[in-house]
Amino acid sequence: MEAKSNFVPGLEGVIASETAISLLDTEKEKIVIKGYDLIELSKEQDYLDIAHLLLEDKLPDQNEKTKLEEKLKERYAIPTEILDIFSLLRKQIHPMDGLRTGLSALAGYDNQIDDRSYEADTERAYDLLAKMPAITVNSYRALNGKEIVHPHKDLSYSANFLYMITGEVPSEEDAEIFDRSLLLYSEHEMPNSTFTSRVIASTNADMYGALTGAVSSLKGNLHGGANEAVMYLLQEAESAADFEEILTKKLYKKEKIMGFGHRVYMKKMDPRAAVMKESLKELCEKAGDYSLLEKCEAGEELMKQEKGLYPNLDYYAAPVYWMLGIPIDLYTPIFFSARTVGLCAHVTEQHQNNRLFRPRVNYIGKPYA
Amino acid sequence: MEAKSNFVPGLEGVIASETAISLLDTEKEKIVIKGYDLIELSKEQDYLDIAHLLLEDKLPDQNEKTKLEEKLKERYAIPTEILDIFSLLRKQIHPMDGLRTGLSALAGYDNQIDDRSYEADTERAYDLLAKMPAITVNSYRALNGKEIVHPHKDLSYSANFLYMITGEVPSEEDAEIFDRSLLLYSEHEMPNSTFTSRVIASTNADMYGALTGAVSSLKGNLHGGANEAVMYLLQEAESAADFEEILTKKLYKKEKIMGFGHRVYMKKMDPRAAVMKESLKELCEKAGDYSLLEKCEAGEELMKQEKGLYPNLDYYAAPVYWMLGIPIDLYTPIFFSARTVGLCAHVTEQHQNNRLFRPRVNYIGKPYA
Repeated sequence: MEAKSNFVPGLEGVIASETAISLLDTEKEKIVIKGYDLIELSKEQDYLDIAHLLLEDKLPDQNEKTKLEEKLKERYAIPTEILDIFSLLRKQIHPMDGLRTGLSALAGYDNQIDDRSYEADTERAYDLLAKMPAITVNSYRALNGKEIVHPHKDLSYSANFLYMITGEVPSEEDAEIFDRSLLLYSEHEMPNSTFTSRVIASTNADMYGALTGAVSSLKGNLHGGANEAVMYLLQEAESAADFEEILTKKLYKKEKIMGFGHRVYMKKMDPRAAVMKESLKELCEKAGDYSLLEKCEAGEELMKQEKGLYPNLDYYAAPVYWMLGIPIDLYTPIFFSARTVGLCAHVTEQHQNNRLFRPRVNYIGKPYA
Repeated sequence: MEAKSNFVPGLEGVIASETAISLLDTEKEKIVIKGYDLIELSKEQDYLDIAHLLLEDKLPDQNEKTKLEEKLKERYAIPTEILDIFSLLRKQIHPMDGLRTGLSALAGYDNQIDDRSYEADTERAYDLLAKMPAITVNSYRALNGKEIVHPHKDLSYSANFLYMITGEVPSEEDAEIFDRSLLLYSEHEMPNSTFTSRVIASTNADMYGALTGAVSSLKGNLHGGANEAVMYLLQEAESAADFEEILTKKLYKKEKIMGFGHRVYMKKMDPRAAVMKESLKELCEKAGDYSLLEKCEAGEELMKQEKGLYPNLDYYAAPVYWMLGIPIDLYTPIFFSARTVGLCAHVTEQHQNNRLFRPRVNYIGKPYA
């Protein structure tokens, strides 16, 4: 076993793929998406612009944008059998597991499922992008005994998604903030869920399979599950001082506090978190209630002082979603839904230039002759 | 990006985990499972012995074996809602996707789903081991418009599984051969599906999530899907000479031929394949029909001569399953079902000593400032 000395737990720092999709450039402090800085994109573009960039390798012009919107609207609806499956799920199932079950069953509706061409994968990606709001919202609603909700085609993609979640046509400002959160969640190099989807795709497995694996990964509370965990923690506190006390106690008991730190950016704040913090300020100002922002800032300061840890996107996305009236159980499913387009781009890239992932192990078990 | 030079496509030869479960020792030519040689185990032990070894770290004595069999029989049944979900799946869905959907929905029935303790994961593994035959067979049957079949508790685990597949109580010899195939498929170090399940589990995601990802991986025709592909190829040929001709044409067209070669054993035959080849001989002898064996041997010889490639387990498991009267669509689901116990052992080990998998990339996309 000549490679024994190479073992790096969690493959930290190990290069797993070549990709033209994205990079966390820690030196230049940029999240690079297809040559663009994600934070810069978040100022001028919206989620569907980034979807187009990820799937077509360029930002859309107005004509392309309109075509994309129309294409997605045509494909919004999901098969009624998928809705029936949602209604059969045991009510205590986690919404991520509900979403995963629907996505898994959706594989049956792809008549070209064995086609791994760039074109077929890209069309599949559009189909999934179109259907994720209906899958995300209706799996959750079925688990809560609520009626199916249908897409509102007069609204933009993100406004419709938020409308399906809350049941109310959102204000322009709310829709914009929600769209920004989707944009920030859309793609982020090689987190565990993206890695999962590429590992699966490398067996020549299809996109539905790669994505169901990614849902499973993202559910874990060391990954996407963190945004829910942050909100439950914020809810426990009645004030900023109270939140500080709760965090201090957790630090004393050496409990993990979600929403801080990131394997790749360790020494400063996730730049996406800063954007969401601004959105939280806007929402607090509009509501005339700064209590959530105050709690978050107190926690941010404390963690910087005590642990040298900085907020990641989940830390500020959670209170933003709360202010937008989104049920906590949907935070992680929304993260997944937003990430779908990035995952599809990675699966497509993996299929186009594939090498089966098949690493080795260090055996530390019982000796043998 | 100091690690650029480290990029190894497919993580070939990279150590991804420390494990006490298994090792492919290429120098000693052994498949080591918990200190035992799998091929030696296949001579004296049966599938449930290996399941006990994987989950309890020891081979069972007679008393432990009896208890294990009873425990599994008590847990054979799956919720009727899961059966209803199977009946809602679109009939053209691949049986692996049907199985995956059922496994995904089963997560809702685990009342301790957030418990990652060794004890909880081990009990969950027994539950999954018990339920996999019913999930595997009934998802397939529903897709083919056939009635639900219930387990036959008077039979052994493997005899019941084969009974559920074929609808007939198998002969002792057939049940033994089927059991041996399950044993050989049970665990195999770090193939893509096992890696997938550990990557997912490392986010602190649950066992159902890790396993649904593994189903997706195993479906790929560069992995578990190979056994189906082998059988379709064998079926195309009317004789050994015809089979040679088909393979020769494929080689000429540089098409990939499934069932040969393995990332880890490249220069000789997978030792599991040799065991299955013996089983195929037994079945051919019993049937008085050696045509499948003759085709396989012709293919084996040709591939050795032309490409220096040797059969892997799938190459000889496929004709064995054919002779046992198993529908081809079930070959990969059976592989998954047999591997469940190995996957559960890996997920449990990952949860007990976890480090989030989060590698990096080489960015080869558009330049940026």
